[in-house]
Amino acid sequence: MNIVEIIKKKRDGSVLSDREINWLVISYIKGTVTDYQFSAFLMAAFINGMNNEETSSLTNAMLYSGKVIDLSSVKGAKIDKHSTGGVGDKTSLILAPIVAAAGVNVPMISGRGLGHSGGTLDKLESIPGFRTDLTLREYKSVIKKCGAVLIGQTKDIAPADKLIYSLRDVTATVESIPFITGSIMSKKLAEGIDGLVLDVKTGSGAFMKDLKSAKALAESLINTAKLFNKKVMAFITDMNQPLGNSIGNWLEVYESIKVLQGEKVDDLLEVSLNLSGAMIYLGGKSESLDEGIDISKAMIESGNAFNKFREIVKLQGGNLTYIDNPDKYPKPKYKVEIKAKKPGYITEINNYEIGMSALELGAGRKTKEEKIDPKAGIIFNCKIGDYVKKNFKFAELFTDNKKVIEIVEARVSNAVIISNEKSRKPKLIKTILT
Amino acid sequence: MNIVEIIKKKRDGSVLSDREINWLVISYIKGTVTDYQFSAFLMAAFINGMNNEETSSLTNAMLYSGKVIDLSSVKGAKIDKHSTGGVGDKTSLILAPIVAAAGVNVPMISGRGLGHSGGTLDKLESIPGFRTDLTLREYKSVIKKCGAVLIGQTKDIAPADKLIYSLRDVTATVESIPFITGSIMSKKLAEGIDGLVLDVKTGSGAFMKDLKSAKALAESLINTAKLFNKKVMAFITDMNQPLGNSIGNWLEVYESIKVLQGEKVDDLLEVSLNLSGAMIYLGGKSESLDEGIDISKAMIESGNAFNKFREIVKLQGGNLTYIDNPDKYPKPKYKVEIKAKKPGYITEINNYEIGMSALELGAGRKTKEEKIDPKAGIIFNCKIGDYVKKNFKFAELFTDNKKVIEIVEARVSNAVIISNEKSRKPKLIKTILT
Repeated sequence: MNIVEIIKKKRDGSVLSDREINWLVISYIKGTVTDYQFSAFLMAAFINGMNNEETSSLTNAMLYSGKVIDLSSVKGAKIDKHSTGGVGDKTSLILAPIVAAAGVNVPMISGRGLGHSGGTLDKLESIPGFRTDLTLREYKSVIKKCGAVLIGQTKDIAPADKLIYSLRDVTATVESIPFITGSIMSKKLAEGIDGLVLDVKTGSGAFMKDLKSAKALAESLINTAKLFNKKVMAFITDMNQPLGNSIGNWLEVYESIKVLQGEKVDDLLEVSLNLSGAMIYLGGKSESLDEGIDISKAMIESGNAFNKFREIVKLQGGNLTYIDNPDKYPKPKYKVEIKAKKPGYITEINNYEIGMSALELGAGRKTKEEKIDPKAGIIFNCKIGDYVKKNFKFAELFTDNKKVIEIVEARVSNAVIISNEKSRKPKLIKTILT
Repeated sequence: MNIVEIIKKKRDGSVLSDREINWLVISYIKGTVTDYQFSAFLMAAFINGMNNEETSSLTNAMLYSGKVIDLSSVKGAKIDKHSTGGVGDKTSLILAPIVAAAGVNVPMISGRGLGHSGGTLDKLESIPGFRTDLTLREYKSVIKKCGAVLIGQTKDIAPADKLIYSLRDVTATVESIPFITGSIMSKKLAEGIDGLVLDVKTGSGAFMKDLKSAKALAESLINTAKLFNKKVMAFITDMNQPLGNSIGNWLEVYESIKVLQGEKVDDLLEVSLNLSGAMIYLGGKSESLDEGIDISKAMIESGNAFNKFREIVKLQGGNLTYIDNPDKYPKPKYKVEIKAKKPGYITEINNYEIGMSALELGAGRKTKEEKIDPKAGIIFNCKIGDYVKKNFKFAELFTDNKKVIEIVEARVSNAVIISNEKSRKPKLIKTILT
């Protein structure tokens, strides 16, 4: 095969064969196709697109660039969830124990925070001792023992993804549905799953700002999952405001514990139950999504879900002291209240700004090397559509970093629009695709 | 400026500013923009295009990546010609002395052969002693003395072009009108010219196979020339068959000498006179193109053109023995005649194949390192539309390389279609654009 001819084909809008895409990805990993040639291909494919078969070929080539975990020795269905990321999205922490408690295995390989969007690994690591860097042997052992495991990406899993993502990041080829699909699905398929529930976020705090592109991504992910014979269901959910009330790593673990203990955090609970319900359904432990939701509720009410959470934490080396007594967790040095400057309806929240503000307080990283402060974050006390009085304490900031407080205060304040006109609450679950 | 933002703009089809393009090219030369980022930009611009202003900005940035020669100390107009290249195209050797004899300076920086297409430098260097690697000081000195000079690209002239071309070559971004324009014009504008006559070839032996793309390139070149305040005129000429009858370096010099001495090689003469006429006209030595053509004819008839050619050869170190006695030139070891297998009309010539056949015989290079055999080439004795009898000797091959003869014989034979139906001669000068 000839790299220039392959680039030319995609440049001129032709469809590449499975063999060509496979050769391209393998050659790039081997280094016989150079960075500058692969980036020319990326740009051509970004602009001219790739069809479902091409996307599936890309995913396949990326998947088999590394190890595909064999979980056939683990009894029962293995279902994972993937979210495209958002602000305050801690559903993984809630649904993994629910679903495992219901008898469906959850083998979950998660990522770290990226920009305004938090990461499951960072949240879990706010629990002292919690190890997300299990070996594949430990990964299998934990899931066999308790039905769920949550770890980070290993270098054996889809190494092509890391390589290609780094190049996309510096060549303006990130926001491409085929590439995003390949990146997500190659990693998820490597986990050894039978099915996947997708949570594609849309809105001001999501990577897909509008419903149309969220749907397109969801459809591409579904198509690819099906081409790999995986059960799949996708939810498009609102990310125009934080999910739940807490943003920041320990704050989110804390909120998850409360939900698992039965506290009703409306929006967070609704999304978590839908996703866990879908996982239980795909895992064959319910006849329908609704029944899966009912089972999920029962798992919370019975205490089984919280117990499962404790079990996971313990098996992955986490200290249960703070799980059982969250109030004992170290406190941040500074707490700042932000009050409404006028009475009115919350009509709009720039959720990206809220996410970035949490990052500035210490909850995220601006560079790969930066350390996260697990205590830092925001508690956000209002939702779009709420009426607030003047001086209503709509947000609290937590940080050890005095320098950033003033800027973040202004940023959070400006991110929330209060108006005289009544406004509607955004629909939380926009649509479900299968 | 931010490279990713600039790539993104072009990726999304926006127009880049002069400042952005300039920064991009400068940063690429400095190495702060990487190969893989520049190739992503190239692919985005290839697919989404660049408008006239962007093309002019690109040309400008490439031009000022190197030295711009100042010929203000040379009296009179300085007009050059550029051809997009073809098979048997030796017009530069004919028109430079004609135009210089008519009192218009011809400062010409030429290239080498590329694939099937010959190069003026290679042709000139078939004259023993002829130096194409003059210093800029020598370049000025020769043009002051005789009104014409023909040299090769120096590393001071538009170094960005070499760098960008190498990257285009391996990233499937060669055939882009804005990039081709930038490449041609940056080098031509660096010569210190007042005006430029363009010969854009079209047909089976040209880089632009169809008239539409040839016109588009001509228009782009004209627009850019005008934006740099240069006088300009473009000819779109036929390249469906060799121009003149000789292909190969010394063979083409020999044919040029014959034309300068008054021999009527119809098509070659017509193109040469039109181009020289246009140069004389742009140089202000005639009132019209037609008058420029008449002056050109007079320069041949008076012997002034041939004398000027001798003068150029002498000033650039060439040995006049072979100019004055071409028959004394060393002979190739092998001469092979190719005969018509049946009688009929020549309806089609695959001119690319003819060019490649000449290359195979030794007239061109397959790799940069290969040496050219100045004696090698083809004499082609027929034109499209001609009637030939069976066994008519329509081509003669010349080479020192016995190994290639059989293959080349078949290749040349297959490149010429002889049919019972009458066929029309292709129009030589398709159109003139100003």
